[in-house]
Amino acid sequence: MQVLHMNKGVGETSYAKNSLIQEKIISFGTSMVEAAIYSVLSELKPECIGVADLGCSSGPNCLATVSQIIHMVDHASRQMGRLVPELCVSLNDLPGNDFNNLFELLPNLYKKIKDDYGIQGCFVCGLPGSFYGRLFPAKSLHFIHSSSSLHWLCQVPLGLGPELGSHLNKEKLYISKSSSVRVVEAYQQQFRKDFSLFLSSRAKEMVVKGRMVLSFMGRQSPDPCADEACYQWELLARALMSLSLDGLVKKEMIDSFNAPYYAPSLKEVQCEVEKEGSFVVDGVETFEIEWDDGDSSGFNESSGNRVAKTIRAVVEPMLHSHFHMGPVIMDELFRRYANIIDDCFFERRLKYTNLVISFLKKG
Amino acid sequence: MQVLHMNKGVGETSYAKNSLIQEKIISFGTSMVEAAIYSVLSELKPECIGVADLGCSSGPNCLATVSQIIHMVDHASRQMGRLVPELCVSLNDLPGNDFNNLFELLPNLYKKIKDDYGIQGCFVCGLPGSFYGRLFPAKSLHFIHSSSSLHWLCQVPLGLGPELGSHLNKEKLYISKSSSVRVVEAYQQQFRKDFSLFLSSRAKEMVVKGRMVLSFMGRQSPDPCADEACYQWELLARALMSLSLDGLVKKEMIDSFNAPYYAPSLKEVQCEVEKEGSFVVDGVETFEIEWDDGDSSGFNESSGNRVAKTIRAVVEPMLHSHFHMGPVIMDELFRRYANIIDDCFFERRLKYTNLVISFLKKG
Repeated sequence: MQVLHMNKGVGETSYAKNSLIQEKIISFGTSMVEAAIYSVLSELKPECIGVADLGCSSGPNCLATVSQIIHMVDHASRQMGRLVPELCVSLNDLPGNDFNNLFELLPNLYKKIKDDYGIQGCFVCGLPGSFYGRLFPAKSLHFIHSSSSLHWLCQVPLGLGPELGSHLNKEKLYISKSSSVRVVEAYQQQFRKDFSLFLSSRAKEMVVKGRMVLSFMGRQSPDPCADEACYQWELLARALMSLSLDGLVKKEMIDSFNAPYYAPSLKEVQCEVEKEGSFVVDGVETFEIEWDDGDSSGFNESSGNRVAKTIRAVVEPMLHSHFHMGPVIMDELFRRYANIIDDCFFERRLKYTNLVISFLKKG
Repeated sequence: MQVLHMNKGVGETSYAKNSLIQEKIISFGTSMVEAAIYSVLSELKPECIGVADLGCSSGPNCLATVSQIIHMVDHASRQMGRLVPELCVSLNDLPGNDFNNLFELLPNLYKKIKDDYGIQGCFVCGLPGSFYGRLFPAKSLHFIHSSSSLHWLCQVPLGLGPELGSHLNKEKLYISKSSSVRVVEAYQQQFRKDFSLFLSSRAKEMVVKGRMVLSFMGRQSPDPCADEACYQWELLARALMSLSLDGLVKKEMIDSFNAPYYAPSLKEVQCEVEKEGSFVVDGVETFEIEWDDGDSSGFNESSGNRVAKTIRAVVEPMLHSHFHMGPVIMDELFRRYANIIDDCFFERRLKYTNLVISFLKKG
């Protein structure tokens, strides 16, 4: 959990500079967020609306989300002819997140919402901690948002390690077509445990009839080995294996690495929601997202390079922590990864699947 | 306001490593904090107690304060035979504060309070912003604490600049025995405005019968030019002037610098409390603190050096921002400051005055 954070700062490889895909994903969820906020305001009429963004990360996306939510609260209140409530907005991520970066952008946000909507009663705080467990006081939240975070597990699934003699998921970083049933089951079990804990924690923190919109990587296929869910890891494993063949990375280190990630199907999510019992799913949208969204920001860069940069910003800290790579090897890894992706792109356009799900807290 | 933060990080000149005096000041306020928390719990019986530490800064002092408050809530609840309430603790400082440093220490705090008191319902967040203005939702706080922060003004007092032909407070950084009445009045006016805004902001955020314990530099003498309130700035001005004589700093830069600081008397504080009208002062303690507390941490260091380091950790960012000094000149400044302080210490022991005041929110 210590190493699950995006690349810090605002440099070339930072998450702040390489999060266009995540921005697009946020925009896909907009209409569902809008509907949820409207429902909360009309049904609960809070004097102060408690809002949380879970796994907010750093960089522009986070504050864009907050700014959008504030705009929606303002707009919906006016539509209903009501006073805009005070807003208490909590930005959550793990303690290793770059909160300083976020906080330095806050004065601009406050200025903007004051200038644009005349809102002064908005209070934004940062709350570090894992959302797989309690984060907030009981019944303090009306609306929870989370984008591009819940596909991260609380930890690498247990039982993949060498306890039973050897590593179970050799040469791979995640579930793969060649993975054994035991690997798939270990991932599924970890997902169920984590997601269930997530739901029960939020259930305590939310008021009755509160709403939650969660957006994360998932899959349409029932098969956990489907490309839409795994292929980015498959290709990263190939890039690592090619470094290993050249003696730049030890194969044993690849065998022992497994990403704390899971891309569930809607059915798997719904199954946990029903078992946990505090929430009802009241809206679902599924999106396909091209690996390369084609936005080249004016640079003459290959698709593979753009994709590799996006993924690097997210996974570099955990690779660094496991492989102890220096910057030269890290650069080489993502150069090879970019080439492998470019090769694949000759054959077909690769896509992720993203789920956006809206939840209602039961009475 | 952008430059009012302590030296970041954990290096030799960092606030985190040079805040022993502030730690001592916190310990002086302990009994008043304890009494305030006991009153809040017995009179208000909150299910979740909203606590804020204003001007928390970074480093060990902040979390020590939080840990102490949690201990007091736990202890007082048990004494009363009540369940320990949930705690919602907000750590506030300006957006330039090193919140990352604080947040990285949080997992240890959570572990400690769980191991020591069995407390799991404690939620700590960081809330960046100026306490001279609203920070929190209405009626969300039961107890407010602030130590070593309220002697900082919202800004340098207006009217000291060269608008009227020349700088009013030449060769000085704060009120001094040679300052004109206009300088003293400009400082007093800024203090009144700021402190009044502080009180009215907190009044909206606190529940009726909430308590607030504020600890800050002040003075026992009615005279704003008394040594207990000014002498550290007087000597720092001397050190700067000696750099200026050697051509290392422009005299005009010293003439144009004024610290956004004010050490009020108890009477001045009480006067603003009565004017603002939302609070009653229900307890006061005045402490004298030696500039050099004698704790040498085993190093063979002069008093002047220790004092200079403590003050450097606090004022370096604002000096840096005004004088644009490089690290060599900055080191030289504090070497000369240390020598000047050592010379003074031959004559007499120098002391600050610290006020600790407890406030009750009226009904």
